[in-house]
Amino acid sequence: MSSTPDNDVPDPAVRTYLRTHRARFLDDLTHWLRIPSVSADPDRAGDLRRSANWLVAALRETGFPVAEVWSTPGAPAVYAEWPSGEPDALTVLVYGHHDVQPADRADGWDTDPFEPVARDGRLYARGAADDKGQVFLHTLGLRAHLTATGRTAPAVNVKLLIEGEEESGSPHFAELIAARAERLACDTVIVSDTGMWSPDTPTVCTGMRGLVDGQLDLYGPDQDIHSGSFGGAVPNPATEAARLVAALHDEDRRVAVPGFYDGVAEPTDQERALLAELPFDEAGWLRTAASHATLGERGHTTLERIWTRPTFEVNGIHGGYGGPGGKTVVPATAQLKFSFRLVAGQDPARVQRLVGDWVAERLPAGIRHELVFWGAGTRPCLTPLDHPGLRSLVRAMGRAFGRPVRFTREGGSGPAADLQDVLGVPVLFLGISVPSDGWHSVNEKVELDLLLKGVETAAYLWGELAADRRDGRW
Amino acid sequence: MSSTPDNDVPDPAVRTYLRTHRARFLDDLTHWLRIPSVSADPDRAGDLRRSANWLVAALRETGFPVAEVWSTPGAPAVYAEWPSGEPDALTVLVYGHHDVQPADRADGWDTDPFEPVARDGRLYARGAADDKGQVFLHTLGLRAHLTATGRTAPAVNVKLLIEGEEESGSPHFAELIAARAERLACDTVIVSDTGMWSPDTPTVCTGMRGLVDGQLDLYGPDQDIHSGSFGGAVPNPATEAARLVAALHDEDRRVAVPGFYDGVAEPTDQERALLAELPFDEAGWLRTAASHATLGERGHTTLERIWTRPTFEVNGIHGGYGGPGGKTVVPATAQLKFSFRLVAGQDPARVQRLVGDWVAERLPAGIRHELVFWGAGTRPCLTPLDHPGLRSLVRAMGRAFGRPVRFTREGGSGPAADLQDVLGVPVLFLGISVPSDGWHSVNEKVELDLLLKGVETAAYLWGELAADRRDGRW
Repeated sequence: MSSTPDNDVPDPAVRTYLRTHRARFLDDLTHWLRIPSVSADPDRAGDLRRSANWLVAALRETGFPVAEVWSTPGAPAVYAEWPSGEPDALTVLVYGHHDVQPADRADGWDTDPFEPVARDGRLYARGAADDKGQVFLHTLGLRAHLTATGRTAPAVNVKLLIEGEEESGSPHFAELIAARAERLACDTVIVSDTGMWSPDTPTVCTGMRGLVDGQLDLYGPDQDIHSGSFGGAVPNPATEAARLVAALHDEDRRVAVPGFYDGVAEPTDQERALLAELPFDEAGWLRTAASHATLGERGHTTLERIWTRPTFEVNGIHGGYGGPGGKTVVPATAQLKFSFRLVAGQDPARVQRLVGDWVAERLPAGIRHELVFWGAGTRPCLTPLDHPGLRSLVRAMGRAFGRPVRFTREGGSGPAADLQDVLGVPVLFLGISVPSDGWHSVNEKVELDLLLKGVETAAYLWGELAADRRDGRW
Repeated sequence: MSSTPDNDVPDPAVRTYLRTHRARFLDDLTHWLRIPSVSADPDRAGDLRRSANWLVAALRETGFPVAEVWSTPGAPAVYAEWPSGEPDALTVLVYGHHDVQPADRADGWDTDPFEPVARDGRLYARGAADDKGQVFLHTLGLRAHLTATGRTAPAVNVKLLIEGEEESGSPHFAELIAARAERLACDTVIVSDTGMWSPDTPTVCTGMRGLVDGQLDLYGPDQDIHSGSFGGAVPNPATEAARLVAALHDEDRRVAVPGFYDGVAEPTDQERALLAELPFDEAGWLRTAASHATLGERGHTTLERIWTRPTFEVNGIHGGYGGPGGKTVVPATAQLKFSFRLVAGQDPARVQRLVGDWVAERLPAGIRHELVFWGAGTRPCLTPLDHPGLRSLVRAMGRAFGRPVRFTREGGSGPAADLQDVLGVPVLFLGISVPSDGWHSVNEKVELDLLLKGVETAAYLWGELAADRRDGRW
């Protein structure tokens, strides 16, 4: 894919605009980051409302003719739209979220997580990268787009949907977008809630894995019993939980549930070639993973394993005695917390059914089980590599960064797939966060020069998309 | 084996003596049970000393010319001896313990565990069955033996060793008996710390399983990491713990560690025949086990599995997230608490070595492990079925109960094996507790008529042993 500048937004004008408006932009973002919009904390419901109202005001000031709070049974979302006015213009829906992960100075933060501090070219605060910074870049990006092109409305119809429960698993999101599908109708979704490979390697994410997760409780004896008196003659739920876990992988570390891989394609030669373009360094990757070796499905590289292959993972296993020393019991119960990551071709509902049947068939008499999935699961999503919007995005990013843009994927899962499925359009990912940004961890930050490159990408993107439309490529 | 009365203790005289001394005996036992000699509780060290001193006084009153407290680095033991005075008399060492399990009224006891209550022919108190009642029966048994035979000293040399740390794993016991082996020298040990099949089926236990137990800690990532970003590409210690557990059994539920069964013999036809004499009722046994099905090594009955076969059991498994809902992490660590029960032919030190090697070979790169065994393990012990002392014991018990005596074993493990190994003599088990007595549980009790049958058995036993010696059978 080329980075040919085929658009109507002159680069120097954009850069001049960003230089002169950068300080005010960061000042505004800092105000927003001070609102502790922690969706997991019921005591923060008022802060979620404050955060949504603050964003609505900021979007109106940006120029959005429509900006409103959308209530949900949980935390509110923010919706805004700015029609292009051009006949036949593309419609783009930007997705992000204004809620943040919990954060407490006492967890090990160097400074107060809700008192943003700019230091060494970084802005430290909870939500700086995940996701307020990446949402807010679209305000300055849009203003730069208008100023540099002399337009009074964007070159495409721009819609924004900024949810308030992403860090709590988006419990009301699918319902919300289904109920508002007509207003949200668009040609593509731009998700600004992901990252790129590294500060030196701008990348576009082209997919996220899906997720099926849940809990399995096994019940054996009515209470813990003596392992001397009874051990070896009755089923032990901890042993059975372990046997299930072990049986879930075959000798090639593939998931052994029959039918699990139905519909899953091996990475294509093109996909493998794109992955090979990334400057992958195993030792560095292991440091990021805080791990001491790689291990996974035979026949696949590390990047293929985390991005293109489905997995089964134990998130927690608990049963029996866990105190100091020993206690010779056969435990009464054991509990497994687990997650499956899914890739294109897999359906969460079908995977839940396959796993449920498989578990039920494998447990011996005397072990009762309760299997619960956390909701309906999350579908995987994948941007087709030949999608015209992906080419537009790559060109915009290439102009902003002045480097070749590579392709990544996201091993995690998110509500992007809901947008893809409910609205029936492809999803593009515009994210400028880097692995060191500390999502969900202490000392979360955003790199200010990368944030401004994101603003610049957004400023070019609307023109690139409009040019593609105008020239008949979309 | 016959129940022929081949001895010098006339039954009616014993029974008359017991009738007239029963009230005083129970009154004394009640006093002892009031002392909360909980060895696991450091605050009860004074009560352990009181309990030991009380027993010494009671043994002196019984007539033991020697009765003393033996200090250990932990709780004290009690030692006593009463020489027969007969030339060439056998020497018997009675083993029991005066410490008890923790107990608190709030755990669900109907009455105070340290305020004994006699009700419906039972005496309820912590330690009533395990083990003060079964220790104390030897005092009245010995007096009845003397009175009924007109002797001033027992027909055999009687020694008693009553330890104070059995409920805490006997941490100083092996050391104690090794240091005092000369004074403890004997022809056989009588362990009075086990039970019999049921109130209607008097039995003699002929063996206990050995024990190797410990803890395995597995370390993967340096902290919990995101299962979406990294899952499927790095080793997961919870998964590896589960795979070890699963691999420890083969498809026949036999322990799969190579060499584990070396030296283990299948039950002989005689042993199987003796087990078949027991009125085993699977539904009733499952109720006692609080379990809902049997499961174990293929090709063996439930009783063979718990008494004659070695096992591996998970006592606890813990790793990763265990709170409400889900958390999609690859856990940093996982911990396994485990126990192996051993049978005749197996050596704890060798099993520890085999298990250590097996674990080390199976873990993938990136998983560090720490394996700790709780001490040197406990050896199995087994009374030879043709041992003359066993015949004496069976006759004594048959006279007391007026029924055929069957044979059981004990699935658990105890310090009996230390006595067997250090003193180099066979161990016999004289126990009258029944499965409903609530050892280590709430509302522990002893059945008073069975306790008195135990007294009566002890009263006959010394004469039976002396007769066997006199007649050249031992």
